[in-house]
Amino acid sequence: MDENNTFQIHLQKLAHQDEKTFETIYTLGNGHFGVRASNPLQGNNSHYPGQPGLFVNGFYDLTQLSYGENYSGYAQNSQTICEVPDPRFIIFEVDGVRSDETPYNVRLVDKNLDMRTGVLMDIFDVKTPTNKQFRLTLQSFASHADKHLFVIRYSVSALNFTGPITIIKQHPYIKQQIQSNTTDMRAAQRQTVLDRTFIQSKLPIMMISTRKSQLALIVAQQALSDNPMHVTMLDDLPSYSKTFDLTQGMTQSFSFAYAISYPHPLLKATLSQPAIAASAEKRLANKSFKQLLDDSAAKVNQFWKNSDIELTGDDALAKGIRFNLFHLYQAAGGDGMTSIPAKGLTGPGYEGHFFWDAEMFMLPFFTYTEPQMARQLLLYRYHTLPQAQHRAREMGVHNGVMFPWRTINGEESSSYYPAGTAQVHINADIAYAIDTYVRVTGDTDFLMDYGYEIIVKTARFWLAYGHWATDDAHAGKFVINDVTGPDEYTAMVSNNYFTNRMAQNNLSIAVKYFNQIKHSHPEKLVELNVTDEEIAQFNHAADEMYLPYDEKLKIKKQDDLSTSKPVWPIKETPRNLFPLLLHFHPMTIYHYQVNKQADTVMTDCLFPKDQDEAQLKRDFDYYEAITVHDSSLSRAIFGILAHRLHHADDAYDYFMQTVMMDLSNSQGNTGDGIHAANMGSTWLSLIYGFAGLGLEKESFNLSPELPAAWNSLRFRFWFHGRQIEITITQPAVSIKLLSGQPLQFYFKHKPFKLTKDHLVNQYLK
Amino acid sequence: MDENNTFQIHLQKLAHQDEKTFETIYTLGNGHFGVRASNPLQGNNSHYPGQPGLFVNGFYDLTQLSYGENYSGYAQNSQTICEVPDPRFIIFEVDGVRSDETPYNVRLVDKNLDMRTGVLMDIFDVKTPTNKQFRLTLQSFASHADKHLFVIRYSVSALNFTGPITIIKQHPYIKQQIQSNTTDMRAAQRQTVLDRTFIQSKLPIMMISTRKSQLALIVAQQALSDNPMHVTMLDDLPSYSKTFDLTQGMTQSFSFAYAISYPHPLLKATLSQPAIAASAEKRLANKSFKQLLDDSAAKVNQFWKNSDIELTGDDALAKGIRFNLFHLYQAAGGDGMTSIPAKGLTGPGYEGHFFWDAEMFMLPFFTYTEPQMARQLLLYRYHTLPQAQHRAREMGVHNGVMFPWRTINGEESSSYYPAGTAQVHINADIAYAIDTYVRVTGDTDFLMDYGYEIIVKTARFWLAYGHWATDDAHAGKFVINDVTGPDEYTAMVSNNYFTNRMAQNNLSIAVKYFNQIKHSHPEKLVELNVTDEEIAQFNHAADEMYLPYDEKLKIKKQDDLSTSKPVWPIKETPRNLFPLLLHFHPMTIYHYQVNKQADTVMTDCLFPKDQDEAQLKRDFDYYEAITVHDSSLSRAIFGILAHRLHHADDAYDYFMQTVMMDLSNSQGNTGDGIHAANMGSTWLSLIYGFAGLGLEKESFNLSPELPAAWNSLRFRFWFHGRQIEITITQPAVSIKLLSGQPLQFYFKHKPFKLTKDHLVNQYLK
Repeated sequence: MDENNTFQIHLQKLAHQDEKTFETIYTLGNGHFGVRASNPLQGNNSHYPGQPGLFVNGFYDLTQLSYGENYSGYAQNSQTICEVPDPRFIIFEVDGVRSDETPYNVRLVDKNLDMRTGVLMDIFDVKTPTNKQFRLTLQSFASHADKHLFVIRYSVSALNFTGPITIIKQHPYIKQQIQSNTTDMRAAQRQTVLDRTFIQSKLPIMMISTRKSQLALIVAQQALSDNPMHVTMLDDLPSYSKTFDLTQGMTQSFSFAYAISYPHPLLKATLSQPAIAASAEKRLANKSFKQLLDDSAAKVNQFWKNSDIELTGDDALAKGIRFNLFHLYQAAGGDGMTSIPAKGLTGPGYEGHFFWDAEMFMLPFFTYTEPQMARQLLLYRYHTLPQAQHRAREMGVHNGVMFPWRTINGEESSSYYPAGTAQVHINADIAYAIDTYVRVTGDTDFLMDYGYEIIVKTARFWLAYGHWATDDAHAGKFVINDVTGPDEYTAMVSNNYFTNRMAQNNLSIAVKYFNQIKHSHPEKLVELNVTDEEIAQFNHAADEMYLPYDEKLKIKKQDDLSTSKPVWPIKETPRNLFPLLLHFHPMTIYHYQVNKQADTVMTDCLFPKDQDEAQLKRDFDYYEAITVHDSSLSRAIFGILAHRLHHADDAYDYFMQTVMMDLSNSQGNTGDGIHAANMGSTWLSLIYGFAGLGLEKESFNLSPELPAAWNSLRFRFWFHGRQIEITITQPAVSIKLLSGQPLQFYFKHKPFKLTKDHLVNQYLK
Repeated sequence: MDENNTFQIHLQKLAHQDEKTFETIYTLGNGHFGVRASNPLQGNNSHYPGQPGLFVNGFYDLTQLSYGENYSGYAQNSQTICEVPDPRFIIFEVDGVRSDETPYNVRLVDKNLDMRTGVLMDIFDVKTPTNKQFRLTLQSFASHADKHLFVIRYSVSALNFTGPITIIKQHPYIKQQIQSNTTDMRAAQRQTVLDRTFIQSKLPIMMISTRKSQLALIVAQQALSDNPMHVTMLDDLPSYSKTFDLTQGMTQSFSFAYAISYPHPLLKATLSQPAIAASAEKRLANKSFKQLLDDSAAKVNQFWKNSDIELTGDDALAKGIRFNLFHLYQAAGGDGMTSIPAKGLTGPGYEGHFFWDAEMFMLPFFTYTEPQMARQLLLYRYHTLPQAQHRAREMGVHNGVMFPWRTINGEESSSYYPAGTAQVHINADIAYAIDTYVRVTGDTDFLMDYGYEIIVKTARFWLAYGHWATDDAHAGKFVINDVTGPDEYTAMVSNNYFTNRMAQNNLSIAVKYFNQIKHSHPEKLVELNVTDEEIAQFNHAADEMYLPYDEKLKIKKQDDLSTSKPVWPIKETPRNLFPLLLHFHPMTIYHYQVNKQADTVMTDCLFPKDQDEAQLKRDFDYYEAITVHDSSLSRAIFGILAHRLHHADDAYDYFMQTVMMDLSNSQGNTGDGIHAANMGSTWLSLIYGFAGLGLEKESFNLSPELPAAWNSLRFRFWFHGRQIEITITQPAVSIKLLSGQPLQFYFKHKPFKLTKDHLVNQYLK
């Protein structure tokens, strides 16, 4: 096997795509920022078809939301991630013609992303209006060693001439007042940003302030020691500029680094502008491209050591898997003040917002393979507890917190509450993710310092938002009215199965940890004002939680009334009318049984012991028939359940439809950004699905079953400080303890002992 | 009894009110237009606190609706009635100072509306910046003889000087680009109108075109023969201007008429602008104020002959009743192309839209007292059938029509569909109103030409939107999911009792008339493609309509899940947090059992034979306890039911709270316009309530019970071409056939014969 091959994303191997899709696929990021793989001559010149941009995690502006009828408690502002001017941008001047004034002809020749090092190489053939041709090669990376840095080397070689060429690097002064006209509500509206540039600490500095959110971002630029340059003023803009004498067939290279400093408002550290510039100068002076790359590549290498999934038997698939894992790595904010936007940092789609999918679809990957990152992502929620508490009160909920459905700064910014604010399950999703994190890592410090507070305050929400029913149908049960489940093709329903089951879990884990903490950290319970009485209420509500069930169909019911509706004629609906939400009024969609995505069956997935296989099969069959998978989050869940039902072909098909989603642009909108949660579900499908990894009692269980098409699957994870490597081949499974103390685990729910020098081999049959 | 007194609305008798409230209360209208009783010196000068305006029924502009998330099928435009420049506006020039350039001091002295003639008198004391004082008296009326005409006489008398005064009458050229900043979504946003003025057919003409709806309105002005003037150009504007030599203590008068022509687009008559001007000249030439007034007052007199309600024992109340009836008369469009806006033609509130209340709260008054007007109002709905059919298809409903929740031009313009489009009961409301109209009038021509088509097409909607349930709870029943009932404090519920019962009625009357028409007009059934099979389906769905009932509480359930929700703590909610919709998020309100207005109990009112008194009492008690009456439509229904339950005090209290609503500005927003439907419910309360008038078999029934505080109640109505007068006194009832053939009727459900020369006296006890 050519191992390197499956770490390379080579343009020539991709099906034909448009410019914007390439820009997304080849975006470089490090969780702090992402840089789309633009045509470097584009800048803000609309002559070219691309959409360049630098997106900094958590750097957003506010736009006032407008409603025909504006009600109390409505989200008043949209938060929109800013499109910051592209650091790849460069200006050439040949024969007195500047490329930013008269567009040059630019032809993309090749791109290759080496995921092993995180370096992207782009090759363009450029022709000037005076018919001088040169090849422009870019090597760039977002540093994973210093997350403030974006580093780029330009190489120019003359193809048909010998003579001078001038390069100009300056921060483009772009007034971004582009208003998006798209009717697809998922594409973001553009915000307005004010930039100014100046020289400080000998560096050209670009400062960007947002109009309404009053945030500031500082970008310092440095010519690296490979080819040092001094900054000068050019066109009133601080610039690096140099003229090279090119000889046909020879190459000239020059490198720059960008130091991107965003003093996140939640950090409360108020660094002064001169201090930031000075620190950037100190950090970058006398650094070469190679030094910076070596530092970063070492970190990327470490990532693969922890997180790689090595699949043999299908190289294209193996590459697709790595592509998805790499993009997750690139997207995850690690500063405790940010999470993972739905589109990563690859585009303006979904406005750079964090949703439930960060916890439910992406976090498990980090929890098992990079627990420190998982901890930082959960800390983001902790830091927004004050906003969540305020929101609960605003919504008339007298106790607990209410996390926003979509947000950057912790405030709700969903403008259509039936598919936004009403998805209160996000509270329980966060609690579920914390529980998983604590059970996998054993990080009781996190639980004590942050996690339990979230679990208690979300549990309190359920007790306040739900109530004890007295009507015939629900008498004596704890019910939760007027919520929207993950399936957005119904809204504002009562007793959504997913929501109630997750709320039940939220309440139960609040009780579970209470019983642990009562003896070890009683002071924490005093601090949080958690009493035995309150815990008894949690326990009672969890015990008596109403979970709707259709006695006639013998299935879990999505909500109190779901099965009373007619079924949407899915087969009779022309393909071009999907996704339904773009072609039908919400009221029309809600009127039918039709699921955008997995909803009730997700509880079968998350709580495997809730049901026997017969029940699982009935649920699966019923909901599969009414689900149209208009959400990219849907198929992975069905795939995992198909695996559990031993529908090997179905599981494989579902997996194959998800894993290549962005590389093949199968949803048609990768240009707006990657589908980060779908990438997370690649890991879920492989590890929760085919490998059958799950928590069992105090340890984990494995129940692997490899698709016939594959030879082997190898992956690693951390469990309570131990690193474990699993290798599944067609006849056998190897389970290896790479570090840490021996422990007991389960294989197909039977206990085994795992020791460091002991390699367990379990034959599958 | 001083009869005249209760026909006069005298300013001195009103509790202190602000300028805007007066302007609304004293608005003059004739169904075609309304003119607010402004300060005539105001114009567009914001120095004064008023809000002058001329509103022409059906003359609107479109404003694009904006959504944070815009979905397919959403209403794209708001239709907003235009504020046309005020015809009362006049300019004075004294000592070279013009009142439109330097504001004069204007003090309102008195106003008096004589409802017997429809003439409003306003008295103002005016002081010029040069301290000249004069009294300005206006007498004005909206003609009910020629609905294009607004007529006004100005009288000026010098109070402290003798000398010249110049008056200038010109169409003000006002660019109305006022954007409303109110957060109360019920106040309208102002639209933009473009005006121009010129002279044609010797008249100053103002032409107003709307920007987006592309409608045109032409207003011609004529100085009347009382004090003829010639039009000249002044400040580039065509104007009437004259200088009078005033003698202290003497009065000078001059009169104008405005001919307001709006070639309604639905009329398809395309009158040319010169033709309209010529027709106005012809119509107005040599006419005096008195002539025009006599013509109009004769019509108003006729209205009172048909429609007056004479109450003795409480003069203030008697006046309040007449005030409400008179405003209904002033608000009803009679051209078949318009209906009655929710605020009449008195203000911009609710954007001049027509809602369900036109049919359910206001139409009964006209059906019984001015059937020709009722017919015209129903014709409006007939003329918008094509839009309603298009809307049904847009909403994925394959058959029938779907009338818009709020509209002027027949297209949906509700921007919050859960409390708008989802109120599909409007379909059945219109059908109910047609059935009532036909049963009261016997107008089978209307039924054949227009009514039955609406009944069939709305019935078809129910068959397509509802469905036959198969789930446990509803198996074998016809159910209707995802609708909103009249009570807007829940939304998108399933099997709303009111909706299902009204839909059942809609289906039933489609069947009933089918059986009549089958023999008399079989060709109509062919034209509408109504078959025996379809009628059998209507019948079956009506028979098996699901009507939710709580077996434990033994009440009609508002919807499938209503009683499973907690009850809103009404008593614990501070008064300043009402109306709830202005202070709580809709999701918060929907989460509780709390009613904005009568919903389920309205079916008790509309279908009295559905339940015995014990059931009615349980429904009434349950729903009264959870209703906060945040809608002005609520109390009248509860009052009528209280009467039926013989809760005389409650019935009286409810009535007293509704009848004076606008005269006393008890809701605090009369300034934005009257509450027309509440005025309609005054009639309902008196006639359906205290008089107990209702349809019974082929005739009507009376079950009167007079509140102890009153001496007598007299009213008239038409039934199948007969005019009948009812006089209820404390011990007796007189029922008099004023015209037409004898008929059988019911008194307290027992049959009696009514003959012309026979006066029936029924002792109450």
